[in-house]
Amino acid sequence: MTLKVEINNAQNRIAHFMTQYFEQDLVTDETVKAATFYSINNGGKRLRPFLVYATGEMLGAKNSDLDVVAAAIECIHSYSLVHDDLPAMDDDDLRRGKPTCHIQFDEAQAILAGDALQSLAFELISSHHFAVSESRQISMIRALSKAAGLQGMVGGQALDIAGTNQDISLEDLEQIHRLKTGALLICAIELGALCAPELKSSDLESLHLYGQSIGLAFQVQDDILDIEGDTQILGKPQGSDISNNKSTYPAILGLKGAKQKAQDLTEQAIEQLNNVNANTDMLAKLAKYIVERDH
Amino acid sequence: MTLKVEINNAQNRIAHFMTQYFEQDLVTDETVKAATFYSINNGGKRLRPFLVYATGEMLGAKNSDLDVVAAAIECIHSYSLVHDDLPAMDDDDLRRGKPTCHIQFDEAQAILAGDALQSLAFELISSHHFAVSESRQISMIRALSKAAGLQGMVGGQALDIAGTNQDISLEDLEQIHRLKTGALLICAIELGALCAPELKSSDLESLHLYGQSIGLAFQVQDDILDIEGDTQILGKPQGSDISNNKSTYPAILGLKGAKQKAQDLTEQAIEQLNNVNANTDMLAKLAKYIVERDH
Repeated sequence: MTLKVEINNAQNRIAHFMTQYFEQDLVTDETVKAATFYSINNGGKRLRPFLVYATGEMLGAKNSDLDVVAAAIECIHSYSLVHDDLPAMDDDDLRRGKPTCHIQFDEAQAILAGDALQSLAFELISSHHFAVSESRQISMIRALSKAAGLQGMVGGQALDIAGTNQDISLEDLEQIHRLKTGALLICAIELGALCAPELKSSDLESLHLYGQSIGLAFQVQDDILDIEGDTQILGKPQGSDISNNKSTYPAILGLKGAKQKAQDLTEQAIEQLNNVNANTDMLAKLAKYIVERDH
Repeated sequence: MTLKVEINNAQNRIAHFMTQYFEQDLVTDETVKAATFYSINNGGKRLRPFLVYATGEMLGAKNSDLDVVAAAIECIHSYSLVHDDLPAMDDDDLRRGKPTCHIQFDEAQAILAGDALQSLAFELISSHHFAVSESRQISMIRALSKAAGLQGMVGGQALDIAGTNQDISLEDLEQIHRLKTGALLICAIELGALCAPELKSSDLESLHLYGQSIGLAFQVQDDILDIEGDTQILGKPQGSDISNNKSTYPAILGLKGAKQKAQDLTEQAIEQLNNVNANTDMLAKLAKYIVERDH
């Protein structure tokens, strides 16, 4: 199976799962329901669901369990995009060529849709009957809530805001990304692994380190693409980090240094996979793709 | 024990619990941490925690378990206040005489603090080792996520927005309040009950009906106080529903009709308690207090 096919698979499965959920007869307001579905149905890469599936499948997890945790983590990611796009935050009108939620609907609906998606993530995991134990199910909820919250994604977004227009150290920049995007990427891998019938703690640890490395590599490559990428292919204006006064890896390490860092991180990620007792090909392909992609 | 003492107790326990949480060394941004603590530390009545304690205590639940679920539900309630106060929603500068979160900090921090509080609610429940089973713990998370989300609080807030400046029926008004405030009040009772070592489904059902009645009674009395109350005692301008073109019970039923409805609901609530196999005095006192209060 190629990486492209597998990524496509993850996209289709999430689309199917969420469409089914929103086709239910929900007792709610129709506008906020539409805004919430619009927010999850956003044409995203579905990198986190892909990580859930790739990790879970190689460890023998049940497909229907993976669908639930993949959808849950994508709810969290999607809600964060909707709130980050708000005028009081990054004030973005477009995301992947489509109007952002507060442009398509309005600000109140965007705030509420984001809030609803966060609740939905926890509703999905707590409403499903997993093949693995209830103890594992609780661990999933704990991992996801921590990765989403103050010591994860929300904390990282706040650090990012605080670091804008500031000269910050490489250490501080890594801390921002570890929390803002790294925590949820690692969580995707962890959720996939927690669905596996048998799970060795040493494998989980190696997968965690793999996740740390690809999380940072992903961000370094994003920063490189902001300088070298093509606006058309990126789907966002090239050079937007610089015009937004965001600290970036190339700004701190130089372009060449940043490219070296991305390579080093990829190699570290793949090394960690060698310690995992499973067929890790797909995760290795992803690590390489992250630094080779052009958008 | 008087109701006042018990309500005070709930307030003190929540204050203690949340202070302890935020005194920990959290890896996050200091501003958003402060904004989040500010948002939970809001001088609220702590009605939901009170319901958790009163229900759990009468059914023999463990105190430390009740502390966790009381804090979790108050995190959800507090986050909803922070987001509802935002300029794009109700645009309120003051809450209980203190600047709202986006006034004290800024809009971005208020959005993030609200988001963090929602994550924290699920982190608290999933991180605690309960005396009751893991199956119960998952039920708590399911109940809370549903009460918070599209088919609960968020859906109700959206219906409320849609109903502003509209003539709506009594049925529609009740639907708004069932979702916007009722779902979380019932959830507080349910969470307290789920902490009890033994729980009869018939008791849970009666408590659910009690929760429905006091939830509506609370709202009817709020609407009455908006007409008859004292701005100083209320902590918000008397007549604000009318000036905000909100539909209210007195507007639909007349003031006398609304008072009768509040009385009827209180009686229905107390009747339900007679079916519960426990000392329900405190819950009965609360039902009476809800329609007798002046703020």
